[in-house]
Amino acid sequence: MGENIGAAARAMFNFGLTDLRLVAPRDGWPNVEAERNSAGALEKMPSVTVFETLADAISDLQFVLATTARSRDLVKDVFTPSSAAQEIRTKALTTGLVFGGERAGLTNDHIALCNGIITIPTNPDFSSLNLAQSLLLCAWEWFKKIHPDENQDITKIPNQVWDAKNSPAEKEKLLEFLTRLETELESADFFKSEGLKPTMIRNIRSIFMRNELTDQEVRTLHGILSALTK
Amino acid sequence: MGENIGAAARAMFNFGLTDLRLVAPRDGWPNVEAERNSAGALEKMPSVTVFETLADAISDLQFVLATTARSRDLVKDVFTPSSAAQEIRTKALTTGLVFGGERAGLTNDHIALCNGIITIPTNPDFSSLNLAQSLLLCAWEWFKKIHPDENQDITKIPNQVWDAKNSPAEKEKLLEFLTRLETELESADFFKSEGLKPTMIRNIRSIFMRNELTDQEVRTLHGILSALTK
Repeated sequence: MGENIGAAARAMFNFGLTDLRLVAPRDGWPNVEAERNSAGALEKMPSVTVFETLADAISDLQFVLATTARSRDLVKDVFTPSSAAQEIRTKALTTGLVFGGERAGLTNDHIALCNGIITIPTNPDFSSLNLAQSLLLCAWEWFKKIHPDENQDITKIPNQVWDAKNSPAEKEKLLEFLTRLETELESADFFKSEGLKPTMIRNIRSIFMRNELTDQEVRTLHGILSALTK
Repeated sequence: MGENIGAAARAMFNFGLTDLRLVAPRDGWPNVEAERNSAGALEKMPSVTVFETLADAISDLQFVLATTARSRDLVKDVFTPSSAAQEIRTKALTTGLVFGGERAGLTNDHIALCNGIITIPTNPDFSSLNLAQSLLLCAWEWFKKIHPDENQDITKIPNQVWDAKNSPAEKEKLLEFLTRLETELESADFFKSEGLKPTMIRNIRSIFMRNELTDQEVRTLHGILSALTK
């Protein structure tokens, strides 16, 4: 919904985040309702980019967390907004946060592409946070981490150093590998039934997307695949 | 505005706050727009109380902080949402937080009735937080202070449910798989030189040992290996 996109942009920009990426927005883009609800944020921010799939949207990122309230039956690290901000700050990677509706928006296939999950603890009797509110809390926690001087209870955190060789691969490279693996598995008749195939693919993706594999490690996986299939 | 009151109630109740007091609401009380925007919070919370003046509303409180973005030329302690939550927690007094529009709502006379001020640090180029958003951040910081166990700033919250199906595999099972993989790679002539082999094996092991793969995922990896080598 345009309203949600506008409110999300406003919440982001309040705390200095400017790279808003939309995946298949229902009402197209640009959107008048989004402009109206952004309180001027969309005009001041760099242009929003629009993608057809989540995989496209995260292809150049190294670390991706999805916000979800539901237990998704997927094995992922679970963060709060503050522990997520801490983790992002420590890792110092090109990072994306994924937000979407719980029912019609974020599917388990989307979650499988992410490194971990952010769940916001709330009043157990009332946990009705909308998308922009969830984003506001995550952006706020991030802002506090990078402006520690303004927050007495936050101490400075040294950045972890990734050298060129050991930097996590962009998601695109992992997806390339996964696509290749899935093609090989298809021709090896691994997916016995078409009905099970989506679940099997989701589980395989979750295995390889969960930790931050480096470029070198993705090359190693390609090498393994070549050796095993030749 | 009713919309603001509803959104404020929702934000409060999300984080367990239930004592909402209104001062001279423009559109009277009760208010249909407020109900509509509270996402059910107003129905579940104790009744809202209405006062004619701020002085009346805070009369039974011991400590009161007002949120304002503007420097008011008043000598008051200035808190952030998190340092305010800390202060409130430490003082353990009957406390109220005051929210109002910056232009037509909160006057300096109102601020003068309060012990201190909460200012929310934001992007200096864009600090357009509405009332419910400011309240959400203050309520969130308070919630974190009284539920410290749910919010370790540094450590990850461990994945909540490790059931039988989703429990991390014993390392033995991973090593079994790795041994099998290495044997297959050996016979596929993957390790070109004996000198490089130890390093290559170490790198491969690192890929699969780094995250906590479950029994099911290890079985999936075995299945993949079988399919690729058959």
